[in-house]
Amino acid sequence: MPEVLFSHDPDRPMARQAVPGHNRFHPDVPPAATARPGQEFRIECREWTDGQIGDNDSADDVRNVDLDHSHMLSGPVRVEGAEPGDLLVVDILDIGPIPQETSEKGPVCGQGWGYSGIFAKVNGGGFLTDYYPDAYKAVWDFKGQVATSRHVPGVEYTGITHPGLMGVAPSQELLERWNRRERALIATDPERVPPLALPPLASGALAGAAEGDLFDRIAAEGARTVPPRENGGNHDIKNLTRGSRILYPVHVSGALLSVGDLHFSQGDGEINFCGAIEMGGFIDLHVDVIKGGMESYGVHRNPVFQPGRVAPQYSEYLTFIGVGVDHRDDTNLFLDATEAYRNACLNAISYLKKWGYTDEQAYLILGTSPIEGRIGGVVDVPNACCAVYLPTEIFTDDIRPGAGGPVYKDRGQVAVTS
Amino acid sequence: MPEVLFSHDPDRPMARQAVPGHNRFHPDVPPAATARPGQEFRIECREWTDGQIGDNDSADDVRNVDLDHSHMLSGPVRVEGAEPGDLLVVDILDIGPIPQETSEKGPVCGQGWGYSGIFAKVNGGGFLTDYYPDAYKAVWDFKGQVATSRHVPGVEYTGITHPGLMGVAPSQELLERWNRRERALIATDPERVPPLALPPLASGALAGAAEGDLFDRIAAEGARTVPPRENGGNHDIKNLTRGSRILYPVHVSGALLSVGDLHFSQGDGEINFCGAIEMGGFIDLHVDVIKGGMESYGVHRNPVFQPGRVAPQYSEYLTFIGVGVDHRDDTNLFLDATEAYRNACLNAISYLKKWGYTDEQAYLILGTSPIEGRIGGVVDVPNACCAVYLPTEIFTDDIRPGAGGPVYKDRGQVAVTS
Amino acid sequence: MPEVLFSHDPDRPMARQAVPGHNRFHPDVPPAATARPGQEFRIECREWTDGQIGDNDSADDVRNVDLDHSHMLSGPVRVEGAEPGDLLVVDILDIGPIPQETSEKGPVCGQGWGYSGIFAKVNGGGFLTDYYPDAYKAVWDFKGQVATSRHVPGVEYTGITHPGLMGVAPSQELLERWNRRERALIATDPERVPPLALPPLASGALAGAAEGDLFDRIAAEGARTVPPRENGGNHDIKNLTRGSRILYPVHVSGALLSVGDLHFSQGDGEINFCGAIEMGGFIDLHVDVIKGGMESYGVHRNPVFQPGRVAPQYSEYLTFIGVGVDHRDDTNLFLDATEAYRNACLNAISYLKKWGYTDEQAYLILGTSPIEGRIGGVVDVPNACCAVYLPTEIFTDDIRPGAGGPVYKDRGQVAVTS
Amino acid sequence: MPEVLFSHDPDRPMARQAVPGHNRFHPDVPPAATARPGQEFRIECREWTDGQIGDNDSADDVRNVDLDHSHMLSGPVRVEGAEPGDLLVVDILDIGPIPQETSEKGPVCGQGWGYSGIFAKVNGGGFLTDYYPDAYKAVWDFKGQVATSRHVPGVEYTGITHPGLMGVAPSQELLERWNRRERALIATDPERVPPLALPPLASGALAGAAEGDLFDRIAAEGARTVPPRENGGNHDIKNLTRGSRILYPVHVSGALLSVGDLHFSQGDGEINFCGAIEMGGFIDLHVDVIKGGMESYGVHRNPVFQPGRVAPQYSEYLTFIGVGVDHRDDTNLFLDATEAYRNACLNAISYLKKWGYTDEQAYLILGTSPIEGRIGGVVDVPNACCAVYLPTEIFTDDIRPGAGGPVYKDRGQVAVTS
Repeated sequence: MPEVLFSHDPDRPMARQAVPGHNRFHPDVPPAATARPGQEFRIECREWTDGQIGDNDSADDVRNVDLDHSHMLSGPVRVEGAEPGDLLVVDILDIGPIPQETSEKGPVCGQGWGYSGIFAKVNGGGFLTDYYPDAYKAVWDFKGQVATSRHVPGVEYTGITHPGLMGVAPSQELLERWNRRERALIATDPERVPPLALPPLASGALAGAAEGDLFDRIAAEGARTVPPRENGGNHDIKNLTRGSRILYPVHVSGALLSVGDLHFSQGDGEINFCGAIEMGGFIDLHVDVIKGGMESYGVHRNPVFQPGRVAPQYSEYLTFIGVGVDHRDDTNLFLDATEAYRNACLNAISYLKKWGYTDEQAYLILGTSPIEGRIGGVVDVPNACCAVYLPTEIFTDDIRPGAGGPVYKDRGQVAVTS
Repeated sequence: MPEVLFSHDPDRPMARQAVPGHNRFHPDVPPAATARPGQEFRIECREWTDGQIGDNDSADDVRNVDLDHSHMLSGPVRVEGAEPGDLLVVDILDIGPIPQETSEKGPVCGQGWGYSGIFAKVNGGGFLTDYYPDAYKAVWDFKGQVATSRHVPGVEYTGITHPGLMGVAPSQELLERWNRRERALIATDPERVPPLALPPLASGALAGAAEGDLFDRIAAEGARTVPPRENGGNHDIKNLTRGSRILYPVHVSGALLSVGDLHFSQGDGEINFCGAIEMGGFIDLHVDVIKGGMESYGVHRNPVFQPGRVAPQYSEYLTFIGVGVDHRDDTNLFLDATEAYRNACLNAISYLKKWGYTDEQAYLILGTSPIEGRIGGVVDVPNACCAVYLPTEIFTDDIRPGAGGPVYKDRGQVAVTS
Repeated sequence: MPEVLFSHDPDRPMARQAVPGHNRFHPDVPPAATARPGQEFRIECREWTDGQIGDNDSADDVRNVDLDHSHMLSGPVRVEGAEPGDLLVVDILDIGPIPQETSEKGPVCGQGWGYSGIFAKVNGGGFLTDYYPDAYKAVWDFKGQVATSRHVPGVEYTGITHPGLMGVAPSQELLERWNRRERALIATDPERVPPLALPPLASGALAGAAEGDLFDRIAAEGARTVPPRENGGNHDIKNLTRGSRILYPVHVSGALLSVGDLHFSQGDGEINFCGAIEMGGFIDLHVDVIKGGMESYGVHRNPVFQPGRVAPQYSEYLTFIGVGVDHRDDTNLFLDATEAYRNACLNAISYLKKWGYTDEQAYLILGTSPIEGRIGGVVDVPNACCAVYLPTEIFTDDIRPGAGGPVYKDRGQVAVTS
Repeated sequence: MPEVLFSHDPDRPMARQAVPGHNRFHPDVPPAATARPGQEFRIECREWTDGQIGDNDSADDVRNVDLDHSHMLSGPVRVEGAEPGDLLVVDILDIGPIPQETSEKGPVCGQGWGYSGIFAKVNGGGFLTDYYPDAYKAVWDFKGQVATSRHVPGVEYTGITHPGLMGVAPSQELLERWNRRERALIATDPERVPPLALPPLASGALAGAAEGDLFDRIAAEGARTVPPRENGGNHDIKNLTRGSRILYPVHVSGALLSVGDLHFSQGDGEINFCGAIEMGGFIDLHVDVIKGGMESYGVHRNPVFQPGRVAPQYSEYLTFIGVGVDHRDDTNLFLDATEAYRNACLNAISYLKKWGYTDEQAYLILGTSPIEGRIGGVVDVPNACCAVYLPTEIFTDDIRPGAGGPVYKDRGQVAVTS
């Protein structure tokens, strides 16, 4: 086990950890630790909401979650010698749930269990929030690398464990650009529910060891952690798993790497927003630096990565297609891959319901299982085409189409709100 | 070899085939053949432009292509007993280029070679047409299942051969819905170049054996074949390859299955529009019917499919990420997976250029090689995140990032216009 | 379709083809055709017994088969410029059953069907002949790349189509070495049934266009085609499929490449001897030469190959282990991987019988389906350990161990002798 | 992290652990712990030689190793309710090297490093001991799931971590059968070096908590742990990795499960005997019982397993073939898969030497990297055919055959004896 550069007491909120983390991206968040190029180290991570969600049968905690406070990020780790224009090379050596056995308060999220939630529309919603505006939850049990849920019986999957969110600090100039362009977007429909984007917000801000004026400035300017941006961030790419190597463009001296929002398993798109199986846990990293790599490799904007070799293998899929039309009122959008993927997901839910899964169970299966979301065609005007590949091997019943037709079973329901 | 239900003389245009095909979707295109449930049969297909593109070193034919006339579809095949509400089960048994050895005029497209084109912006363009507005072409040689190109040296890939376009006839009601919604889209910006959508167009229309008033009606009302829609159509899904089973909702009596636009290889997104390696060839199908399957399986809108087991395996990828921001002017879009994927592709091109590939060569590699286009996150407001997985094993040089940095080589250029 | 260098009339036995093939390896079998390095060509192949087995429900033909006459080999093809010490590079471009639709006598083997036989012990037997000494047969139907059998209901597999036998001619010196060492083996137990090896045999010999003294010499000296040897030959390696590249050491001027014994599907070991799904068909090859390659690459003895990318993917296996003990009388053998694999196969049969498969059906499943036969440990004295990986996805019932226990079904029986 | 049922202090030999393990299989080894069906637990394991091998550049420790003392087994664990005739279901939840950071004496084997040795012929030898009779060693460093070695530069592989040895206790009757048949084998050549088998041996025996007469009886009768047998044991099957489920026939009340000999990586065959990358570490298991499962599933003799989904994926192989002939004196063996595999391995070494690897480096690559050892044909008398699939992606240089020919590089040497 490599040296722990950022530790985590499962019984305390992030603000009261020995070295607290942060939840805003800003060039001036003080480093929590320093690593040398070539070093291996462990980072312990809190679950992204800082422990607001419990292992129980009510979705009230998901409905009431305070999102101003997320995501809990561990770090930043300063990497010696990394300077703007370099590429920071990050190898994911290992990743997993919290290995500690006990906690004063009983197992916290990541100690044998995780959860997945459908957020209420008033609280940001998810990919299908216009169809499913209320809050729901499923709790998942971990057995080795396999997840099962009492709230979604009949499925069992080998998780592609990964960090939902990892990234480096933006430069001041890049941060300002983000704030400018996101505010311009919000201005196009400032009253929208859910909002189009999330501007800087002092409420709930964490900035590591920053205090006084520095804290105030970070809280006032710091970028919210929800979207992925040029610095990496909330990619929610399930294949950033064990064995992956990521190359991040460096924007500030020391790179300032942060990580959090660990997922036990997730489908492409993380469609129910809090759609992965969320957990606290650890991630082991190795870092290195390619001097001047942004220019020499032409990696100017977003990170680039090489996936690892150990993602779980499935070989039988049932694939649902969608095209970029809003079928509710038959509005034809123009090469809209987002809508195409939404329709593919809705088509999958329609199918799964015939086997007894509720809408919410089916939605959560798509959010948490290792589905592949693929771009089909994005040039055949006006309709984009996307597809969701659902591995049929995750179901304990055989749900493939066949002579007999679907077999409907009562499968209960996910956790609902009171 | 199964019975040939639709044959194809490589030396004649579609209109002069013994039984001509069609290039518009309409419920009243007369069936060209009839199949029984359980029957296996072969369909021969012309290359989608009906032979407008040649095996040469000029892109003039791509620049001047007449798109009113495309796509060349073989069929429709009436399937006995298929009625609205049923699911038509289509198994792809085999697919390949034109097996005939000779032709009066030398090898036509599909006889040992195919092509891929970047369309000019004035002619529809492709996914990156704002960046690459001119016409280009690469000719590809087939060696077994492997493609190479004198215009793109240093790559070699095993094709995921598939039909770009396969689908059933719409009902009159569905056709009218398409025409209504697409016309509404066009009306939002009717002068746009390229246009937002393609309305029915009598010029260039083919309607099989239809004549007189029937022909005129089909030509006036028939849906253009460019976009995928509820009937299937131009999915451009590379994984619809050998061994796949597709379930199509049936909209008219007999289902009326048509197929064309065969691709020797293609990347997810078919990003250069004529982005696959295009070819004439054959496809062997098996059909069956699930009576009342739309309702019993909940497959109401789009086709569903089970991929085959024999897609080529690659295990090393370099993955480029993009987010949904228009970086040209830093406009932040809202959960725009299309733009995210576009940026991922642009990032890949930026990288490949460091190894000596021209912009156009890199663009064509992304269009034709078995890249995987994946949805990352589509819920992290405001930025969608997509990724393009480029298999590094297709390159004869080792293009992975490493200690030595990129090795620049002069790799010539694709075919350009005069 | 590449040029046909060796053609095949399905209605005639090999001896009466326009250019007959051969069934003995000898340096002086006259070339049937000539290929240039870099050339692509098609070879048509007869089924290995020359048409002795029929599509019917009796195993009498398998019991009575004349093996003196096998294997039917197409060729030899002389490759220009290939000399002893070179490596002959052979790419398998494509391979498949006989594409012709019709024959005067109804479909022959390879036209939509193939067979697999358990040979009687008196006729050579198979891997388990001490356990199953009688003759049995199953006929398999081809549907695209999938095989099913009325004699083995409940399984369906995507074939890894390959040539069971492909090789180059031995030099006179190498041939003599083979004859010497094989005769020495036979001499250790000359009366054994089945025999330990098969010496040269004039009866049934075919030697292409050779006549008179040349024919007599080839018939007297020529190596039988059953075993794989330094020239390649009857490898029965299922992964030598589409896209594979094989490097053969060249022993005679022109290399003299021959091929036959095409298999639609086969498991590792081809355990029932005639264990693949046998068929007539075609194979498309590309040849090239690496001058002096034997020395420069250190490939002195056996061929080396790079498998293709398109073998069917399965991801769920049930794996049976065996160790190198003869459990019939508890004799402990010494690092005997053959016995270990035999026991693994017997263990698999024991399991499958609980689901209603007969011994012979189970035996034929192991022979014909894409099982993987793996070496476990071959150093842990005294017991070798081998395993057979049976893909559970080939069964239409779920045969994995689970809570419910096996479900026994009557599954009929294979074809038996009268 | 599940409850630790068997712990391990890295600084003490097995005999002086709080609860010592054992190194002989015998029904009366006292249980070290008890598990309930459905329980998850962790077992800590010592490296198989009990710490005889060091992280240094001399192979003297490999030459001088005391094998009487191996293998170090943790357990046995009694499983409540398991009775003869049942199947013990063991799920491998996780497995890895020793997670502790420090030790009094510096890192022991499993703490960031492991080793692989070629044993001297006088000390048991390995698969190729007639060709390489001396002792050699390579030390491997772990970086996440990847191993590299200063003694074998230019390779890097993702390990398929697994227990080399796991099994249940034999019944007294079964134990006696083993002793009888192995002694009979030894009697055929009692002076052989290395010996044909290893009979019970009091010297070096460990029997857990057994004392006095019980200990003496176990030491006198207990089966040595080298070979795999009906109880499982030293399978050395690399695919028994994370996510695998094994079903063991139960021979004694409580089943008495033991495990040890953890491997970071290994090729099929573990050909250099101590051929895996050996390590101390942990394994997390889940156990359950299928009552009467031996009869109901027909699993009477050897364990059966379902591999996990997360073995590393490689897609490019160079495959070496061997046939069952002893080429040293051209002796033709009869269907000898062991010799066929040996020749395949020798052929691979011949090839690798052209790139600058020494014989010993090449031998160790085959022993430690994820090569696949496959049964080709075992029915084509007289020659068995086996193949070794070497993943070319483990080499940092491109070692595939190509136009340029092999590139010879000086790659140093492995650790040798003084």
